[in-house]
Amino acid sequence: MQFWFEFSSTYSYLAALRVEALAGQHGVPLEWNAFLLGPLFQAQGWNDSPFNLFPVQGRYMWRDLERICADLALPFRRPSQFPRRSVLAARVACRFADESWLPAFVRAVFRANFVDDQDVSQPVVLERCLAALDLPGKALLDEAQSPASKAQLRAQTEQARALGIFGAPSFMVDDELFWGNDRLEAALAWTHAPSPVNPAG
Amino acid sequence: MQFWFEFSSTYSYLAALRVEALAGQHGVPLEWNAFLLGPLFQAQGWNDSPFNLFPVQGRYMWRDLERICADLALPFRRPSQFPRRSVLAARVACRFADESWLPAFVRAVFRANFVDDQDVSQPVVLERCLAALDLPGKALLDEAQSPASKAQLRAQTEQARALGIFGAPSFMVDDELFWGNDRLEAALAWTHAPSPVNPAG
Repeated sequence: MQFWFEFSSTYSYLAALRVEALAGQHGVPLEWNAFLLGPLFQAQGWNDSPFNLFPVQGRYMWRDLERICADLALPFRRPSQFPRRSVLAARVACRFADESWLPAFVRAVFRANFVDDQDVSQPVVLERCLAALDLPGKALLDEAQSPASKAQLRAQTEQARALGIFGAPSFMVDDELFWGNDRLEAALAWTHAPSPVNPAG
Repeated sequence: MQFWFEFSSTYSYLAALRVEALAGQHGVPLEWNAFLLGPLFQAQGWNDSPFNLFPVQGRYMWRDLERICADLALPFRRPSQFPRRSVLAARVACRFADESWLPAFVRAVFRANFVDDQDVSQPVVLERCLAALDLPGKALLDEAQSPASKAQLRAQTEQARALGIFGAPSFMVDDELFWGNDRLEAALAWTHAPSPVNPAG
């Protein structure tokens, strides 16, 4: 299963903390695909998070998130800035997607933003996340900002668009797209028993 | 629990078919509150369903709905028109909200639209739904179109807005708003054990 996430997305935080354990229970191999929502939102005329553009939806989202975190006993503190620029973190995640430390790094960045209210747009914060995993933060960030790495994230975001992805988190199982943290279980179920639903029906 | 629904909303169809049995299992009294999404959408600059305005989301929604209906063994056929004008059905549901036949009428209208592809904006279709329940369709529709009844639906839609409702279906449990068919179970759980979540936390 492909897990498509955006570091600035609140519901991606929930999914990022849940996905590895759940996929493991289902015996489903996981691909971690960072991408940027900004270019996709801009394509439909939004220059900010829809949760800021539509404040009534935004108010609801924060409360919904708070309730879900309480239910799941996940820590959560509303960040003092939202959304935070995620491009550097996404470049790291995209460039090093195949490294064994990647899932731990992704979770660390999400926690920094949505638990510790740290400005994850800043290299120093990401360096700390990497250093906490005994990784050479500065060298990895430099590599993540190489032209090749930047192009890699642009291509991955373009691939998201081509797959019909419009929000985060999203899950792809073969050709089936599932959107939202609350569809994670349905996506995993689909890996076992794709229903013979006819799209034309 | 208040169940807020819009007859033209696809996910309201799912909730309308599920809500009474589930609320019964929880011993939760149910209030059926029809309202119109149109005026709420217009207030944020949308003159059509967001599923039409944003076709990528729309394509996903139809597939999502199809999968959920297959999972739940609910019948479903994509209507040839979407959305269908729901104002007359909503006036009936609002005017006769306290009648014992109301839930059956609501389900009949949703089925007419989302299973039998009938044009539920037409009085004759609603008359048939009422007649099938042994009710005097014509007389009830006339009453639903009285000035008092029209004002009642306007007031109910205004109340939805005042509650922070922005989509359908929505569920209210005391002051807690839950949005979406996939939050029905969470709303019912909330009726038993409101968590001491501090909104300022």
